[in-house]
Amino acid sequence: MLPTRAHVLAQLFHQWHMTPQTETIPVSEAIGRILAKDALSLNTLPVVRASGCDGIAVHSDAFQNGIPDASQWKEGIDYVHADTGDDFDDAFDAIVRMEDVTFLEHGGLAFANHVEVKAGTDVRPRGNTVALGEFLLKAGVPLRPIDLAALVTGGLTSVLVYRRPIVAFIPTGSELVPAGTDPLRGQMVDANSILAKETLLSFGAIPLCYPIVKDAPTELETALDQALSEADIVIINGGSSKGVEDYNTQLLQKRGELICHGAAAAPGRPIGIAVIQNKPVVNLPGPTAATFYGLDWCIRAIVNRFLDRKMQKRETMTGTLTSDIALPSVMEFLNKMDVQKHPDGSVAITPLPMRETRPMASMTSNAMFVNEIGGPAYQAGDEITVELLRGTELI
Amino acid sequence: MLPTRAHVLAQLFHQWHMTPQTETIPVSEAIGRILAKDALSLNTLPVVRASGCDGIAVHSDAFQNGIPDASQWKEGIDYVHADTGDDFDDAFDAIVRMEDVTFLEHGGLAFANHVEVKAGTDVRPRGNTVALGEFLLKAGVPLRPIDLAALVTGGLTSVLVYRRPIVAFIPTGSELVPAGTDPLRGQMVDANSILAKETLLSFGAIPLCYPIVKDAPTELETALDQALSEADIVIINGGSSKGVEDYNTQLLQKRGELICHGAAAAPGRPIGIAVIQNKPVVNLPGPTAATFYGLDWCIRAIVNRFLDRKMQKRETMTGTLTSDIALPSVMEFLNKMDVQKHPDGSVAITPLPMRETRPMASMTSNAMFVNEIGGPAYQAGDEITVELLRGTELI
Repeated sequence: MLPTRAHVLAQLFHQWHMTPQTETIPVSEAIGRILAKDALSLNTLPVVRASGCDGIAVHSDAFQNGIPDASQWKEGIDYVHADTGDDFDDAFDAIVRMEDVTFLEHGGLAFANHVEVKAGTDVRPRGNTVALGEFLLKAGVPLRPIDLAALVTGGLTSVLVYRRPIVAFIPTGSELVPAGTDPLRGQMVDANSILAKETLLSFGAIPLCYPIVKDAPTELETALDQALSEADIVIINGGSSKGVEDYNTQLLQKRGELICHGAAAAPGRPIGIAVIQNKPVVNLPGPTAATFYGLDWCIRAIVNRFLDRKMQKRETMTGTLTSDIALPSVMEFLNKMDVQKHPDGSVAITPLPMRETRPMASMTSNAMFVNEIGGPAYQAGDEITVELLRGTELI
Repeated sequence: MLPTRAHVLAQLFHQWHMTPQTETIPVSEAIGRILAKDALSLNTLPVVRASGCDGIAVHSDAFQNGIPDASQWKEGIDYVHADTGDDFDDAFDAIVRMEDVTFLEHGGLAFANHVEVKAGTDVRPRGNTVALGEFLLKAGVPLRPIDLAALVTGGLTSVLVYRRPIVAFIPTGSELVPAGTDPLRGQMVDANSILAKETLLSFGAIPLCYPIVKDAPTELETALDQALSEADIVIINGGSSKGVEDYNTQLLQKRGELICHGAAAAPGRPIGIAVIQNKPVVNLPGPTAATFYGLDWCIRAIVNRFLDRKMQKRETMTGTLTSDIALPSVMEFLNKMDVQKHPDGSVAITPLPMRETRPMASMTSNAMFVNEIGGPAYQAGDEITVELLRGTELI
């Protein structure tokens, strides 16, 4: 029995002694980064009090006995303009809203009948927006645009965040040619480098993509050594299986502590994982579907551990299966699915079995489903909940 | 009655004569971009046929009468190695899987008893991965990492996508100081520029953030002119209300066709929208909560129209209200909410009413709810479905 994904990861996280690393970066560059400690305000805003609306600042005393006759009031003496957020002279202590004030033709004011003014009316007290030491954001969450706005309001110019791991990606295979090359007989286009690069960026890692390495043991070991010297996490893509030129998992075994060769997860079953120089090195099987799944469950988990980040959950949708799914009950199998929402609101979910589906249609599908080991069989007509790979507005 | 958000946008899209603009860019830079025409494959892969598994290529003739005696077989004559995806000499026409072959000590082979070989067994035919002219991706969808992999597999080096709009953001207000400045009495930190910049990037736009402009009509008009000369869409932030220094909507009216001053959506009710030189110009109210909401419903819709993209839908969660929400039934009001998932699976949703909530807690909350105009009142204990502002793993 091959170990499960959860088992493999637990094993890896046991062997890999990872100390979270942090760095201080400008708030202006912190989008998507994971805070390493709670952020507290350095500012108090308003610095003194401020107007709470567009209006005029007045002496509340003048309103002690009801609405005063303001027909002779002079700007700068009896009142000043004070729009939302504006400071105003300490002589004034309350605000009357603009909509309750009439400016008379030859100067002076009149107030609406319902106006009630006391000291502090429509005045925002000092610290009303934010106060020194006030809690802004807790550690462990990725920073959104609005979070950066909160941080700069709180006067922070820099934040302590977890360092992004550098992840080396080494595409291997004598048959591979770089994307954009016209493939000759026997050649295959390397599509995994761009997949890995953009996927790693979306995980919050820094991808370091190497040129294609031929299936030659010395070249592979040289590439591994270079990657170990430059990266925190290494992915060797391809050459993980039983072929005569599948040297990579042997290389992992030779060079470090092999965690597994093979997991109960397919496509990508012959995955090899090792710890070398206290760095995770993953030999990710080469088929693009296997690389996709391995990046998703294994590399994402490793990157998240580096970032002290919780595993992301995809949005799900529930619908009715249009055909049976034959699932290998001893594997956590990644089934690509096609989800369609009908005008009547019903959701039809069509499995895209690997052997009967064009690879490009499977690759670009809008949903996926990973079955539990020993889980139930699924038949046409069953309700099933799948993970979405596109926004619901596109389903 | 103020016009609704939908009405305002319909009006704008009627007055703004927008012709979608496309550009051709390298696939390597196309992440997140919106395809402007269907993508079809230029490649056929495999170029000829290829091995369908790790194994050896054989002459199927040799298996015509059952499993042959292969103890004297020689590599290069009777068989060759052929791993998954490998090309092999045209003399061979079938593959035997590695796990079904035993390599004898002094050369020669033995096959497992269950082996069945015909012409084409475990051979991937030409075009099995992708064929010339095959449909890859349809126009209108944002490109994901796996989509880029599909495009490069199909031999595309460039794609036709919608041009990203340049969106000018002009922060206005004499009280504003740039983020990172220690605020003095009467000053407020500009938190909206970083909010707008990162939000616009997340929408797929190119933000062009201007320095803070004081509340002075000439300076504001100069900034507007510069923005109109550089950007496709202009946001003037602040100065939209009734204050004495709120010149901006007047400026919009003077310079172009005013679509609205005020919408039945709060915070940010006094939003001003105009078309000037056939470009949408939005005077977005200055409070950060109003800027957030206006970016979300108005600017996102404008950017999406430029990109011919459907309005994104947020993930939702349903739970039980912990307290009543007092909603202005004539407004689509943005209520910030705090969602908590309890260990028993129940979901508690706590409204964060603007007057009783610290602004930073409201800003950084994990959910929001926009009520329908004339919709029902909500009371503690009611079920409610809210839009999530963080991933469910963080709830």
